[in-house]
Amino acid sequence: FDYDGPSMKTTVPGPRSQELTKQLGVIQNVGAVNFFCNYEESRGNYLVDVDGNRMLDIYTQISSIPIGYNHPALLKLMTNPNNLSTFVNRPALGILPPENFPDKLTESLISVAPSGMTRVQTMACGSCSNENAYKAMFIWYRNKERGHKTPSDEDLSSCMINQAPGCPDLSILSFMGGFHGRTLGCLATTHSKVIHKLDVPSFDWPIAPFPKLKYPLEEFTRENAQEEARCLEEVEDLIVKWRQKGMPVAGIVIEPIQAEGGDNHASPDFFKQLRKIARKHGCAFHVDEVQTGGGGTGKFWAHEHWGMDDPADIVSFSKKLLTGGYYHKDELQADKPYRIFNTWMGDPSKNLFLSEVLNVIRRENLLEEVTRSGKALLHGLYELQAQYPGILSAARGQGTFCAIDICDDATRDRILVKARDKGIKQIDRATVHLFL
Amino acid sequence: FDYDGPSMKTTVPGPRSQELTKQLGVIQNVGAVNFFCNYEESRGNYLVDVDGNRMLDIYTQISSIPIGYNHPALLKLMTNPNNLSTFVNRPALGILPPENFPDKLTESLISVAPSGMTRVQTMACGSCSNENAYKAMFIWYRNKERGHKTPSDEDLSSCMINQAPGCPDLSILSFMGGFHGRTLGCLATTHSKVIHKLDVPSFDWPIAPFPKLKYPLEEFTRENAQEEARCLEEVEDLIVKWRQKGMPVAGIVIEPIQAEGGDNHASPDFFKQLRKIARKHGCAFHVDEVQTGGGGTGKFWAHEHWGMDDPADIVSFSKKLLTGGYYHKDELQADKPYRIFNTWMGDPSKNLFLSEVLNVIRRENLLEEVTRSGKALLHGLYELQAQYPGILSAARGQGTFCAIDICDDATRDRILVKARDKGIKQIDRATVHLFL
Ligand code: FES
Repeated sequence: FDYDGPSMKTTVPGPRSQELTKQLGVIQNVGAVNFFCNYEESRGNYLVDVDGNRMLDIYTQISSIPIGYNHPALLKLMTNPNNLSTFVNRPALGILPPENFPDKLTESLISVAPSGMTRVQTMACGSCSNENAYKAMFIWYRNKERGHKTPSDEDLSSCMINQAPGCPDLSILSFMGGFHGRTLGCLATTHSKVIHKLDVPSFDWPIAPFPKLKYPLEEFTRENAQEEARCLEEVEDLIVKWRQKGMPVAGIVIEPIQAEGGDNHASPDFFKQLRKIARKHGCAFHVDEVQTGGGGTGKFWAHEHWGMDDPADIVSFSKKLLTGGYYHKDELQADKPYRIFNTWMGDPSKNLFLSEVLNVIRRENLLEEVTRSGKALLHGLYELQAQYPGILSAARGQGTFCAIDICDDATRDRILVKARDKGIKQIDRATVHLFL
Repeated sequence: FDYDGPSMKTTVPGPRSQELTKQLGVIQNVGAVNFFCNYEESRGNYLVDVDGNRMLDIYTQISSIPIGYNHPALLKLMTNPNNLSTFVNRPALGILPPENFPDKLTESLISVAPSGMTRVQTMACGSCSNENAYKAMFIWYRNKERGHKTPSDEDLSSCMINQAPGCPDLSILSFMGGFHGRTLGCLATTHSKVIHKLDVPSFDWPIAPFPKLKYPLEEFTRENAQEEARCLEEVEDLIVKWRQKGMPVAGIVIEPIQAEGGDNHASPDFFKQLRKIARKHGCAFHVDEVQTGGGGTGKFWAHEHWGMDDPADIVSFSKKLLTGGYYHKDELQADKPYRIFNTWMGDPSKNLFLSEVLNVIRRENLLEEVTRSGKALLHGLYELQAQYPGILSAARGQGTFCAIDICDDATRDRILVKARDKGIKQIDRATVHLFL
């Protein structure tokens, strides 16, 4: 069955959620808990909480639910006895893969491989995907520097005690406002909110400005082109500067749309130029599609909107893909086994779900559906900002990956609470500002 | 049904495994693949490969299979329709937990909480468990330094660009031979093999020697006590030195038995003294039980063998616990939500399996069984080393977590291959030495 709209029974969080929050509070920090959910009763776009409130979910578990709650195709997959063993026996995929692993990869991840890439490494979440992508870039870069010769004795001995040249002074260039995860390597390239970074040691790596475009785009063509040119120039300056500092940039990492940083877009031309700069300076180009991948922009990968044959050296993913991992060009494959490695290297039970999600996306033409409803959504946002010019501005988006700016924090919080009381589940305002 | 012994049909890897390795090689680096498995046919301690070879598995997917393949209790859990939704709808646990989450935590992880700890944070693998445990220690340490006052404006602005004081110069003290994972933060505390570390930038953090005990222990009581005292002294020296360097030690991380580093043990007294040193210098004490936790030593946690009421500030786990995470003392909880956070914060479907694994461990008295069979195993190793004095030495172990040294690499490799041909699946020799 399908639900036909939100239905609110209590304020949110309701009494049962509050009770459970208290219970969980004895075990964990519950400051981030919005409410408790009844996932059995949730369906499609509708999330049901433990107090019987049914909300239109435009948050989708931090953008990680690809085809809605309890999709019949996924439930069916669970009842197939042939799949049982995949759930019960999680293998060390890098050493002892199951018989169907090559086939499953081919029909799932490889079937949606970005242009120019035929190789994929599965991981388990966005953070290990990016951490290992960075390692792949460092290994690639050092092998180039060594002229692909065997590492020296000094390389081997110094790396064991965290010292150069074995642990080299290399860097990853990232962008202000970017988000790439919260483990220490990823976090060194994350610059969206203080709450993620405060008190955690980091690396002195270069951070470039991400273009701040003015809207509506057609009115600010020249200004926006200048802004993008300024950012690109800064990227080149930083690459040169860090090389001079003795900490060369091995790779550049960027999101096609800065998501956590506030839905910041740039033009296809910006990304094309950036790709060129990376190539010119011998840096790998890593496109982080953890948040944008999976179809939300109307194409399976957001970088497809750039229209390039060779968009990147590495493309990482997780969230709506259910499994983490990264695609890479052949030369980015580590030269030896066990360099990119961990116990599980992903989880075949997540690949199983992904295969089925891809079937549903194809069968039901969901990418076209996203494009169509994304247009309706963006059109609605345009109309709203025309109607409330002092309050709403900068409506923007690609597919259903849409955003609009609200004039100030207090108004934003009021709108979020009102929307929630009408049954729309968006991010809780508590997530937006802490320490600020 | 149960298998009653190994049964070998081909050499390993057999023709079907070789074929699949070729197929997977088009997509991934397959240098670490030993062979492909038929997990449907595997049972208990016996792993069946795609060529029909049945091996006694003493490797258990890098020590991550707690109660054997296709355990009936786990298969049964999968057929319960009430559990379906848990597999199909993976939530953002930190924000929107399912109704049964507090109960499930209480009956699983909390029911085996280490002494002195009532709080647990779930994660998804050993790496994110340790990365976040480190972050918790850094946050705790900085809050102490600030006298628990609000961070300064300089803290807030500098952290966004990876600079001190917001991203402070703090360190984690680790031990030579230790292994704590391979993401960049974890990797800075890992010092077991070159292949893990080469070419990856790292932090200049202090590394202490881990005791190298001489066997048999009863013959070297005095030497071993001296060796442990030397290592403890070095720990204190490093703490002082790194404080003087302006990079104070926020936490000490150690495995109760160094596993990846070659099964290195130390006495309960060593750990007791180390715990005291940590307290004396205001460093958090983090016991990494990713490899040792879950019962393999005959107690659920290896640190229980130390007999302490207050063994640690943080205990991390993963592998045989199926979910990752860490226990911590109350004061190690971050002061604000979203400081220790990520999209999924674990996976309730893994908690479900863990609950059942704990039921089986209790119902079948598996810890006693491990102690009993561990004694038989160690006794057998003692006999073997008595029989082959020039070849085997230093038999040691706790529970079934046993090891023996082989005189040289070539002999070791020969023994491993012979054992494998008789149907014993141990780590492949290829994993042991690379670049060396
Ligand atoms: S770091 Fe990705 S699952 Fe742990």
